[in-house]
Amino acid sequence: MRNVRLDICYDGTRYKGWQRLPGKSATLQEKLEQTLTRLLGEPIEVSASGRTDAGTHALGQVVSFHCNSEMSCGDILTGLRSYLPEDIGVYSCKNVSPRFHARLNAKSKTYRYRVWNSSDPCVFDRKYVHIDRSVLDLEKMRSAAMLFIGTHDFSAFCANPHMKKSTVRCITDLTVETADNEIVFYVTGNGFLQHMVRIIVGTLLEVGKGERTAESIDLLFGAKRQNAGAEVPACGLCLMEVNY
Amino acid sequence: MRNVRLDICYDGTRYKGWQRLPGKSATLQEKLEQTLTRLLGEPIEVSASGRTDAGTHALGQVVSFHCNSEMSCGDILTGLRSYLPEDIGVYSCKNVSPRFHARLNAKSKTYRYRVWNSSDPCVFDRKYVHIDRSVLDLEKMRSAAMLFIGTHDFSAFCANPHMKKSTVRCITDLTVETADNEIVFYVTGNGFLQHMVRIIVGTLLEVGKGERTAESIDLLFGAKRQNAGAEVPACGLCLMEVNY
Repeated sequence: MRNVRLDICYDGTRYKGWQRLPGKSATLQEKLEQTLTRLLGEPIEVSASGRTDAGTHALGQVVSFHCNSEMSCGDILTGLRSYLPEDIGVYSCKNVSPRFHARLNAKSKTYRYRVWNSSDPCVFDRKYVHIDRSVLDLEKMRSAAMLFIGTHDFSAFCANPHMKKSTVRCITDLTVETADNEIVFYVTGNGFLQHMVRIIVGTLLEVGKGERTAESIDLLFGAKRQNAGAEVPACGLCLMEVNY
Repeated sequence: MRNVRLDICYDGTRYKGWQRLPGKSATLQEKLEQTLTRLLGEPIEVSASGRTDAGTHALGQVVSFHCNSEMSCGDILTGLRSYLPEDIGVYSCKNVSPRFHARLNAKSKTYRYRVWNSSDPCVFDRKYVHIDRSVLDLEKMRSAAMLFIGTHDFSAFCANPHMKKSTVRCITDLTVETADNEIVFYVTGNGFLQHMVRIIVGTLLEVGKGERTAESIDLLFGAKRQNAGAEVPACGLCLMEVNY
């Protein structure tokens, strides 16, 4: 059985997220599986490095799937580029070891979150940023961001109230950068709970507005969901890179 | 009678161009006039620096209108930002001399045309670029671009076959730049004929592909439309700046 890896990107605006859902056809997984199934002439099931939420984008999503087809990687790439809609792009298609699995082998992932923070109009990037025109104290946000780094219980940063498995994760990097009219967050970690990046960014924005102190972040680890900040919208979020 | 200047931007994707058309409501002029008329409580007619084509964008469009309303510029700005759709943005609103007219006083305009020229997928900018993955000879395109500078009869670069007025225009600047996956054209001139920038860019792309020589550009001035290249799509075009 052959194992294939795809590196893809997508504009998540019109999709109900990555994961296939019964009865809802506008998911990225279903669109990709349908296209591969038709192209290769056999039923294909794909695994991604992780699910992305409805409306979330990806520049560096990684997908793997098994197939019997002997179609060359070049022809699969060309076929996908022809048949996928224009909001899903494929960078590369490669044969990989039978043991590679896009989700199980992922060591860490990097997400980007874009906040439009200017009085200027935001017309062209409106589907890729969260607009927040508040005055933000960048230094306080950066101090708070440092406190997230390390292994913590992120229970307060998990949107799933029925989460029964461990909520301990390790964040290795969290930076707050400025670019033109934007504040851009980059978060790297070994795994992410549901809406975790969006709740972290929402909490950092509250620090930036003076609604909570940078130091208070330490009190959130192991705490209940309502103690952390409000989650920011999915549209500002983009999966940038998966490391194996 | 008060005279007001607006500096605006828009994503032209879902509009049938700038100019109000009877029976077609999805034009930028009509949307802006409707919003101003409701906001100021009197019928408003606006003049833009120039019409943009269906699907063409603007980062630096200038508009002027007369009104009797004494609403402050700050309140007009806030009102427009509240009531205009998210694909139209307003940078500023100012009172100007009664003699200012956005179109009649425009001395020159700068347009940008973006060509996505890479085998990489183009997902996020797909509505703002023209995708052409051909191998292009940049040096030849730059030599050809130089020949456009000056005052010429641009008859071959006018999409309107019934044009009865002069087709002489002056181009003061035409540059061909590279940026990431793109080739970006900037054209500045004292006025532009219908689709003129799009036909110039199409002609330059044909030079880049070796389908015509750089030197042959000189033969196009005063020539018939069919002698110049094919026009490229509206989506890559953006009005960047108007000089008064």
